[in-house]
Amino acid sequence: MSDYDDLMAFTRDTMALQQVSGRLGWDQETMMPRGAAPQRAEEMAAMESVLHARRTAPQVGDWLGKIDAESLDDVGRANLREIRRTYERTMKVPATLAARIARVTSEAQGIWAEARAADDVAAFLPTLSEVIMLKREEGQALAAGGDVYDAMLQDYEPGATGAELQAMFNEMRPVLSDLRAAVRDAEAPPRLEGSFDEGAQMKLTRQLAKAFGYDMSHGRVDKAVHPFSSGSGLDVRITTRTNPADPFNCFYSTIHEVGHAAYEQNIDRAHLLTPLGRGVSMGVHESQSRIYENQIGRSRAFTGWLFAQMRQAFGEFGIADADAFYGAVNRVNDGYIRTEADELQYNLHVMLRFDLERALMQGDLLVSELEGAWNDRFEADFGYAVDKPSHGVLQDVHWSVGLFGYFPTYSLGNVYAGCLNTAMQAALPDLDAALAQGDTSPATAWLRESVQKYGGLMQPKETIESASAQKISAAPLLGYLKGKFGGLYGLPSGG
Amino acid sequence: MSDYDDLMAFTRDTMALQQVSGRLGWDQETMMPRGAAPQRAEEMAAMESVLHARRTAPQVGDWLGKIDAESLDDVGRANLREIRRTYERTMKVPATLAARIARVTSEAQGIWAEARAADDVAAFLPTLSEVIMLKREEGQALAAGGDVYDAMLQDYEPGATGAELQAMFNEMRPVLSDLRAAVRDAEAPPRLEGSFDEGAQMKLTRQLAKAFGYDMSHGRVDKAVHPFSSGSGLDVRITTRTNPADPFNCFYSTIHEVGHAAYEQNIDRAHLLTPLGRGVSMGVHESQSRIYENQIGRSRAFTGWLFAQMRQAFGEFGIADADAFYGAVNRVNDGYIRTEADELQYNLHVMLRFDLERALMQGDLLVSELEGAWNDRFEADFGYAVDKPSHGVLQDVHWSVGLFGYFPTYSLGNVYAGCLNTAMQAALPDLDAALAQGDTSPATAWLRESVQKYGGLMQPKETIESASAQKISAAPLLGYLKGKFGGLYGLPSGG
Repeated sequence: MSDYDDLMAFTRDTMALQQVSGRLGWDQETMMPRGAAPQRAEEMAAMESVLHARRTAPQVGDWLGKIDAESLDDVGRANLREIRRTYERTMKVPATLAARIARVTSEAQGIWAEARAADDVAAFLPTLSEVIMLKREEGQALAAGGDVYDAMLQDYEPGATGAELQAMFNEMRPVLSDLRAAVRDAEAPPRLEGSFDEGAQMKLTRQLAKAFGYDMSHGRVDKAVHPFSSGSGLDVRITTRTNPADPFNCFYSTIHEVGHAAYEQNIDRAHLLTPLGRGVSMGVHESQSRIYENQIGRSRAFTGWLFAQMRQAFGEFGIADADAFYGAVNRVNDGYIRTEADELQYNLHVMLRFDLERALMQGDLLVSELEGAWNDRFEADFGYAVDKPSHGVLQDVHWSVGLFGYFPTYSLGNVYAGCLNTAMQAALPDLDAALAQGDTSPATAWLRESVQKYGGLMQPKETIESASAQKISAAPLLGYLKGKFGGLYGLPSGG
Repeated sequence: MSDYDDLMAFTRDTMALQQVSGRLGWDQETMMPRGAAPQRAEEMAAMESVLHARRTAPQVGDWLGKIDAESLDDVGRANLREIRRTYERTMKVPATLAARIARVTSEAQGIWAEARAADDVAAFLPTLSEVIMLKREEGQALAAGGDVYDAMLQDYEPGATGAELQAMFNEMRPVLSDLRAAVRDAEAPPRLEGSFDEGAQMKLTRQLAKAFGYDMSHGRVDKAVHPFSSGSGLDVRITTRTNPADPFNCFYSTIHEVGHAAYEQNIDRAHLLTPLGRGVSMGVHESQSRIYENQIGRSRAFTGWLFAQMRQAFGEFGIADADAFYGAVNRVNDGYIRTEADELQYNLHVMLRFDLERALMQGDLLVSELEGAWNDRFEADFGYAVDKPSHGVLQDVHWSVGLFGYFPTYSLGNVYAGCLNTAMQAALPDLDAALAQGDTSPATAWLRESVQKYGGLMQPKETIESASAQKISAAPLLGYLKGKFGGLYGLPSGG
């Protein structure tokens, strides 16, 4: 066996163990009996300690030092690139710091949950300060003199920089803000009201998952408190949730998670249990979940079919016809919560967080100033004040668990989805006719062949640019949103 | 930290990782999508390789060499004893042999399943020969000059010997054989017939699990092809199965698995994730599942309550009254299959396998002679001939996966249950009155306090002898069976 073969065999086992850890996480959210939590924490910690030892194993460094990348093919070079990136990243952070971050963020998550429940910002700030201090220390170790926030971004979106994102967001924000103001002044489409049987929601949601190409022989759908997708390759499971008053939440959460899961399921099987056998970045991942959910799932054509399915499942529910239903699905509502925001407003929520967390990491914003900065910015962007911290600075788990640099990948995913959508629509002129029949297969096949099958073979930006045959820009997304919401709300420039 | 503390911290992580492996096994049988199998095999192999490295870690040998057992308390000495036993056992078997056994038995299981489906003994024998050769080699390594079969027994029942088991079985076999012949000549109780809704079976089976003290906050009940219990400590899950024609199979499988699971759940929490925090042997485990299932669950008192529950769940089902129902539950039927056998005949199935596998391991029986030996012995013990190999030598998975020395622990468990039962009945004179109300709590509390809470603190024999306040012998079991079936079948010597 060559050094490369040895490295890959070792890596393959590590990836298999990572899948095991992921499966435990899924079990915890879906199947685990409540009283098992303390034991599960020890099981997870034992797995993490095995994984950490493998990630920092000296033989990985030896192999990386000896293997000549030029002797490898494309796949070999891509694997080597990913293994090297992960190894160098891990080795830059002192083990004691990594252990402190793990301990503090694990405690901070519980403190955050209690503070949110009590709407008590002060109860969270000391812990958040400690998390930020430790994460900045980690960022400095990773940046080695460069920009701390840029260094953190690499964990979620390799190749991205804060400056680039800032420029893109600066372009998006006024357009979205203006569009939002115009929509608020216009007449709104009807609102979905009534009560919808949860069993029937689950039945239809499974139908939707299959309609979007989710492979049930390599996955399953369960209920959980939060919708998520878990696993790679041959075993990618999703969760959804039901609420009698809000079937759209169930259906569009499912379609969103199917986007994530289909990406993992559709990666070329040759990459199974290698660094290339999983989604290449958070942004590219989100591009898939978002294009499934929004550009396909919330289109006029597909919602026409969904309207008929819902009428079959639930009978008459007070929406007159498919046009009104399309309006109800895409209705723009006031609200405080990012995860409940519609396509139009979602990115405004993300940009707020991006600016604040970048300033926190760069030392330009103090933790004591955070709530005020959040509230001021929210009111400026949304036109009304945050009414309580659980609707504001305490709403997201991310910062408590140390996820700095993650938020912008949500918006980047939307931007990517915008680019992919223009290319997909050009490649599939008859797509709407298929979607109107509930047939998403032309779209999902195009995404599989253009994006998903490559996994980590190309870098994130290259993945999207080669699939969409254009430079990444926010313009396609902004054009799509202006067209869609302009039409829906009868705005002068719409249509 | 002392060497003992270090050893225990290391061991605790190993036990946590073992729980993770067990959870994957549970997932595979209950939740895993079918297409995930090849990936899961790699995940399991990666876990096994991590566990093997820990079991043979040189530092464990160092710690064992340095720790002075006399400096420890009872718990410490028991932990040390168990860790030493496992370590020395693992180190005696060359890694290459262990790897060959793992590979060959994994293949053999598939070959056995196909051979059984095709009723083709010849298709299985070459593989079985290889398994036996490798297991004998392993047994010789473990025995280090002693008896090969005795060495294998230690994996399942520490302290047991083939000669001791042989003597006990020699005492049991004629008694059971005579009792069986008398029962066959007598008038049989009614047979349960009809079709029983599977949803209602699952509902009642969950009620039964709770009635037997199964703690649902540390466990869950799912359906699987084979009933089993999985896990230790705070997360012990069971499975059951349903068949419209055979609700007793569902209910008594559940009660049996609850016996196993309650043992694991009820071990003193101080032993969590230590070698003492799990059932001490297969025999003691089976004593719990069997006493729950048979001496308690199939008693006249408890079946009276179950009859009422079944009438409530299924309406009238053709059994006249509680006495007739007690007869139907305990009806002795002809049959070929061990797992379907009643209390009276079960041990005859086991003794057959014990004699044959011991002879195979000791070189007194050739694989080519195995089927003939099985069929001759079966006809001698049961009075009719095996009609096809899947009803005979191919019926059990055990030998294909290398489990030699496991079978006798089933009967040992029954013998243990007999000893425990006499002590329990003496301690709880009013037990039947409680059971008649569906209240098993006096019995399950007695078993928890007398047996279960100790986990691995005492050796298996000591565990049973101290709980039952008697030397282990088959006499209590034989007396119980003669009394029960003599009464049920109106035999002259019956009670």
